[in-house]
Amino acid sequence: MNLFDPRAFSHKGVVYLTSISHLRLATSDDGRHFTVAATPTLVPSEPHETYGIEDPRITFIDGFYYVNYSAISAQMGVVTCLARTRDFASFEKLGIIFAPDNKDVALFPERIDGRYWCFHRPSVKQLGSVAMWIASSDNLLDWGRHRFLIGPRKGLWDSERVGCGAQPIKTPQGWLQLYHASDEKVRYCSGALLLDLKEPWKVLARSKEPILFAEAPYEKEGMMPNVIFHNGLVDRGNGQIDLYYGAADELTCGATMDVQAVLNSLV
Amino acid sequence: MNLFDPRAFSHKGVVYLTSISHLRLATSDDGRHFTVAATPTLVPSEPHETYGIEDPRITFIDGFYYVNYSAISAQMGVVTCLARTRDFASFEKLGIIFAPDNKDVALFPERIDGRYWCFHRPSVKQLGSVAMWIASSDNLLDWGRHRFLIGPRKGLWDSERVGCGAQPIKTPQGWLQLYHASDEKVRYCSGALLLDLKEPWKVLARSKEPILFAEAPYEKEGMMPNVIFHNGLVDRGNGQIDLYYGAADELTCGATMDVQAVLNSLV
Repeated sequence: MNLFDPRAFSHKGVVYLTSISHLRLATSDDGRHFTVAATPTLVPSEPHETYGIEDPRITFIDGFYYVNYSAISAQMGVVTCLARTRDFASFEKLGIIFAPDNKDVALFPERIDGRYWCFHRPSVKQLGSVAMWIASSDNLLDWGRHRFLIGPRKGLWDSERVGCGAQPIKTPQGWLQLYHASDEKVRYCSGALLLDLKEPWKVLARSKEPILFAEAPYEKEGMMPNVIFHNGLVDRGNGQIDLYYGAADELTCGATMDVQAVLNSLV
Repeated sequence: MNLFDPRAFSHKGVVYLTSISHLRLATSDDGRHFTVAATPTLVPSEPHETYGIEDPRITFIDGFYYVNYSAISAQMGVVTCLARTRDFASFEKLGIIFAPDNKDVALFPERIDGRYWCFHRPSVKQLGSVAMWIASSDNLLDWGRHRFLIGPRKGLWDSERVGCGAQPIKTPQGWLQLYHASDEKVRYCSGALLLDLKEPWKVLARSKEPILFAEAPYEKEGMMPNVIFHNGLVDRGNGQIDLYYGAADELTCGATMDVQAVLNSLV
């Protein structure tokens, strides 16, 4: 939940929401035209989900679509949960995989050195920065071997905070991750990160300029102006990626991305 | 690191330390008279330890003494690390087990339902409280199945923040954990928590009054007045516990505790 969200207001120190976030299925044959389900698909049901669930990332692993999402509650803050489905009709909730405050988790689509991997974005108070970490797991539920991956860079487009986007894409050059970042003006963009294929905690390259940023009027204006935030992608398999992102926290938009062009931009 | 610590000072927004915390072995035949090693025993060596390591908890499991501790750095904030030793002469560092900010971790001395267990104390920003969580693991390195355990209670001695003390003690009535807490006046005390033996995320009882609190002049005055913070205990096996705690962040003190008396206080 964003406390600056007009859906939220506070009275005598208590936060009230005028709506509760949930996840709803949108289906499409071409990735361009979508039908949004008439009713919610995945809804808050647990004590740690009382203020809503949001920002899902989906990774297909071993026959399941794993959906991780942020769950918010007054008691526990912001945690990351995992659920899985085979058909997007019935879901199995697997509980909290990262304790508060932790969000912006994306699972890698395959094992590396026998382990599952993910990005995550823990929270710090006095020291440290809003940074991307990488962790691994034997079972997708217990996570460890935490390593600091990247932090903000002063003076650049990602100077204030960084966090993962959708699942990383495997390329011959390395794992390609489109991550999001904001600067001190709360401008959110996406740029690329290239990680070693076998040792994914090793950063090979990182965008000096953002790749996806607010340009259209509906991106530059609105509830959260100049905020581009992508959570989903579909790898077309022909070197083209369909990216899905939120614009100004109001709309869901699509973009296409040429993988080789992004890799070339990192040289 | 405590930024209010006189060892720390800041200049133009940068924190400087006049000393770096480390762990040093103290040995004793009777638990009362100690010889402190002339040189540091466990010292910062990793990028996440550059500002020091502190607040160790030690649990004996499967032939090893597992030492978990807080590690602090400007880049990463406060993480919890794990090390192990058989002899307190050589240590094996096992890396970060909880990403930032997370401290106040204590391992249970035995498996429950085939899994290892621990308390931990993650950090929240806008929502939630400074609360104790419980997690479990197959291997002591990857942690999951996170559950909220207890939070602060308004109007009581633990109104502001809570975190574990040393390893929990197994009693016929349940797992007995002496936890620390502070109120809004930054008075730190210890009280008891009784957890179900087989389902340790279930709280059976909790102290309404603190059990260990500042009384002596050296506890009520000093660098951090009225701060009692216990990290270590030795179970004598005869119903008596030796507790070791920091007083006013200046001294290390000892106390004895009668297990049955504490259990009776919880009824």
